[in-house]
Amino acid sequence: MKTAQEIADFLGGTLHGNGSVEIQSVGSLERGAEGTLAYAEGKHVQHVASTRASCVLVPSGDYPDRTHIVVEHPRLAFARAAQWLIPDEVRPPGVHATAVIEAGAEVGPDVSIGAWTIVEARAHIGRGSVVYPGCYIGTGCRVGDECVLFPRVVLYPATDVGDRVVIHAGAVIGSDGFGFVFDGTRHVKIRQVGRTTIGADVEIGANSCIDRGALDETLVDEGVKIDNLCQIAHNVRIGAHATISSQTGIAGSSTIGRRATIAGQVGIADGCRIDDDALVGAQCGVPTRKRVPAGDVFWGTPARPLKTFKTQQAHLSRLPSLAAEVKRLRAELDELKAARG
Amino acid sequence: MKTAQEIADFLGGTLHGNGSVEIQSVGSLERGAEGTLAYAEGKHVQHVASTRASCVLVPSGDYPDRTHIVVEHPRLAFARAAQWLIPDEVRPPGVHATAVIEAGAEVGPDVSIGAWTIVEARAHIGRGSVVYPGCYIGTGCRVGDECVLFPRVVLYPATDVGDRVVIHAGAVIGSDGFGFVFDGTRHVKIRQVGRTTIGADVEIGANSCIDRGALDETLVDEGVKIDNLCQIAHNVRIGAHATISSQTGIAGSSTIGRRATIAGQVGIADGCRIDDDALVGAQCGVPTRKRVPAGDVFWGTPARPLKTFKTQQAHLSRLPSLAAEVKRLRAELDELKAARG
Amino acid sequence: MKTAQEIADFLGGTLHGNGSVEIQSVGSLERGAEGTLAYAEGKHVQHVASTRASCVLVPSGDYPDRTHIVVEHPRLAFARAAQWLIPDEVRPPGVHATAVIEAGAEVGPDVSIGAWTIVEARAHIGRGSVVYPGCYIGTGCRVGDECVLFPRVVLYPATDVGDRVVIHAGAVIGSDGFGFVFDGTRHVKIRQVGRTTIGADVEIGANSCIDRGALDETLVDEGVKIDNLCQIAHNVRIGAHATISSQTGIAGSSTIGRRATIAGQVGIADGCRIDDDALVGAQCGVPTRKRVPAGDVFWGTPARPLKTFKTQQAHLSRLPSLAAEVKRLRAELDELKAARG
Repeated sequence: MKTAQEIADFLGGTLHGNGSVEIQSVGSLERGAEGTLAYAEGKHVQHVASTRASCVLVPSGDYPDRTHIVVEHPRLAFARAAQWLIPDEVRPPGVHATAVIEAGAEVGPDVSIGAWTIVEARAHIGRGSVVYPGCYIGTGCRVGDECVLFPRVVLYPATDVGDRVVIHAGAVIGSDGFGFVFDGTRHVKIRQVGRTTIGADVEIGANSCIDRGALDETLVDEGVKIDNLCQIAHNVRIGAHATISSQTGIAGSSTIGRRATIAGQVGIADGCRIDDDALVGAQCGVPTRKRVPAGDVFWGTPARPLKTFKTQQAHLSRLPSLAAEVKRLRAELDELKAARG
Repeated sequence: MKTAQEIADFLGGTLHGNGSVEIQSVGSLERGAEGTLAYAEGKHVQHVASTRASCVLVPSGDYPDRTHIVVEHPRLAFARAAQWLIPDEVRPPGVHATAVIEAGAEVGPDVSIGAWTIVEARAHIGRGSVVYPGCYIGTGCRVGDECVLFPRVVLYPATDVGDRVVIHAGAVIGSDGFGFVFDGTRHVKIRQVGRTTIGADVEIGANSCIDRGALDETLVDEGVKIDNLCQIAHNVRIGAHATISSQTGIAGSSTIGRRATIAGQVGIADGCRIDDDALVGAQCGVPTRKRVPAGDVFWGTPARPLKTFKTQQAHLSRLPSLAAEVKRLRAELDELKAARG
Repeated sequence: MKTAQEIADFLGGTLHGNGSVEIQSVGSLERGAEGTLAYAEGKHVQHVASTRASCVLVPSGDYPDRTHIVVEHPRLAFARAAQWLIPDEVRPPGVHATAVIEAGAEVGPDVSIGAWTIVEARAHIGRGSVVYPGCYIGTGCRVGDECVLFPRVVLYPATDVGDRVVIHAGAVIGSDGFGFVFDGTRHVKIRQVGRTTIGADVEIGANSCIDRGALDETLVDEGVKIDNLCQIAHNVRIGAHATISSQTGIAGSSTIGRRATIAGQVGIADGCRIDDDALVGAQCGVPTRKRVPAGDVFWGTPARPLKTFKTQQAHLSRLPSLAAEVKRLRAELDELKAARG
């Protein structure tokens, strides 16, 4: 628990109202209750006056009856305050009696290993990491410091996970890529022997899958955030601080630039290159070997620049009237020709 | 095992033929074997005469050589009869020796808890529920009466599951939503602290994911059926008896109405509102904050009324002939102008 | 470890250079290191001269300074050599002390069953199969010889898995299909009682889901390869040696032909028939009961022959100039009519 004044000091904001009001948690502006911190931006500031939250982060303005803190970016400040106010679920350090740590595996200090988790030979779990029950840490994996692996995460052998990585339940990292050669009768598997590298501060959503490199490496660089049910194929490289929304799939050997934004249900075919700071809209289909230039916004299937997409959509919706106009032109022209006789 | 007469009585239908024939299970009209109950609707009634099933549910008609039961809705009657005839897999009540029930957790009477399942502190499992091996029931979760959790289901802390809910293998309920704020350099996580509420009689498919509310609540109301590999994001509200087919994703804060039908691989962006009894067709893309009115049928990407979609598709397929007509008009007009000189 | 000469002999290729060079593993042409075998096809042969790999498989040509093996199909030869060179991860045979083999289950010789795996009553695991930790093998399942089930695979009761099948982590086989009848108020479940049959030499990706038949059978025939996060619904039949790429969904009762290629994120609605050797492009939407003829290539949503799709796309991209031409025609025609007075 913190006071409103302590939160203002922590955020470097300016407090107005009762600095001694106590804040236990965070809440929304509309449904926040006593003891919660909320925030308001844009048109939502109209609700500040009526909120039941005990303190609100706002970008400006004066609310005489409300305890509020003026900060430059309320949503960002709110995220920081929430991290400060609300601790992660505490898992007692130690290895559960039912967990199996194979010979040659290393478990760092202050690590919590839940029930029925196996840490295979030569694997390493870094200091302060939390591994929930039912995880599988394959042979030779390295998990960095202060990571959180939620229940039932599977790391295939030799997966390398950086510090402070969060992996949600059911995610599978380092599985075989989809590599086969057809011999005329049947598919012959290409042994998948490459590495999987997950950078520091990455977060991976529930039931997402990241395949190991076929021969070289699949790389998810530092700070990348991947939502639930995503598929990252072999040899993909995702640049630092990119975000990948839910149910997106990225096929083999494609490259995603730094800070790129890939929306939900996007399909990126193999060998594509999405450059830094580009944005690929929801449900886009990016065809094989397509390049999206740095900073560009692409939309649609096949994906094209947003402006082109919008122009085409406008033309599409005017297609019925275009067809009608062509019909009129035909009639008038025929009439003209008939008159000329 | 029941007799055909018993089934007719149970369904309130009219039996024709041999009421004492014994029925052990259900089967299809085409491949049903002796001892099975089948059903026929629409054009399939032509196969009633040749089926090997011992009894058939039909909407009308007379099949002199066949034991059949006339009911108003054969498929619905079939579903009811199958539930009556075929018991769920029986799991012996009791807590498996390897399961962990943490101090302060409550397990109701007649509950079956499989091997290597953990019920964390302050969690509650209601009377008669079956939890298969390898499930994770987080701190403070509540699971209602007569639920079935198949192997490896994960409930994050504080998930609230109603009575008679069925959750298939690998589903993850209550995971963190995808909420981050970019600070100019990196993404700062917004603590996800909201609730997850699953109503009574809900069924959730294998490997589907439902995120907890960011600050408030994610709600899947009673009777909702969700297929495999679906993604339900934070703050989504799904109205009672809606159905969500496989691989559909619903982004943050969208609302789905009561009895709405969402087909497979649909993407619903954030802040949408699909009203009661609406239908959204397969692979639809519903853009941000779009509203689908009650009872409407939407199709395509971006999603639009089915009639509009069909008109546009028709115009699209006539586009080559439209272009040819424009070319002819140009030639004729040029000729006319030349003749005028 | 093998020598280059041994590999050439194994592949039936022609060695040039140093036959005694030792090969431990495989690598890529660009990043391969000493001791690795690489391959080159097409334009990539230009990199043969500069590779650091110790031996390269090539289709033809002469590289005086390089140890290389000339073979007809380098990529296929590479796949075969890699399988020969690199053993699967060795799991010691035997049943882990924590695994549960229920009474009446059969475990064949040389089987490896990992920790916290349950083999339910009447299930059978064939000779030499490897079951990683945390798997669930339901009542009455049959797993063939020399299969590999990675961690946390779930087989619902009565799933039948052929020989040499590989199932990746988190996959769920034999779950209930999505079958309900609306009774006017609520959805009544249709008991899913059909079989699930997985043929020999099938590979199934991580977190994919295959539903059991509703009444009859879901069949994945021999040699089929299914990528991660795919959904195969009840009663689907997939012909031998077909490939299904990531995040594709196939709805109820659809049939996929032998050797068909289904790309990523494809949606195939119910009752479709994709014939032998057909190809369905990425993100295609194949509407209900659509048939794709044998050997055809379909693209787009709704899916149509690739040639039709390309023609429509070309017309679409010329739509703005078509509209401009219509506008010009209108102006010229009006002028002509005005001049005529």
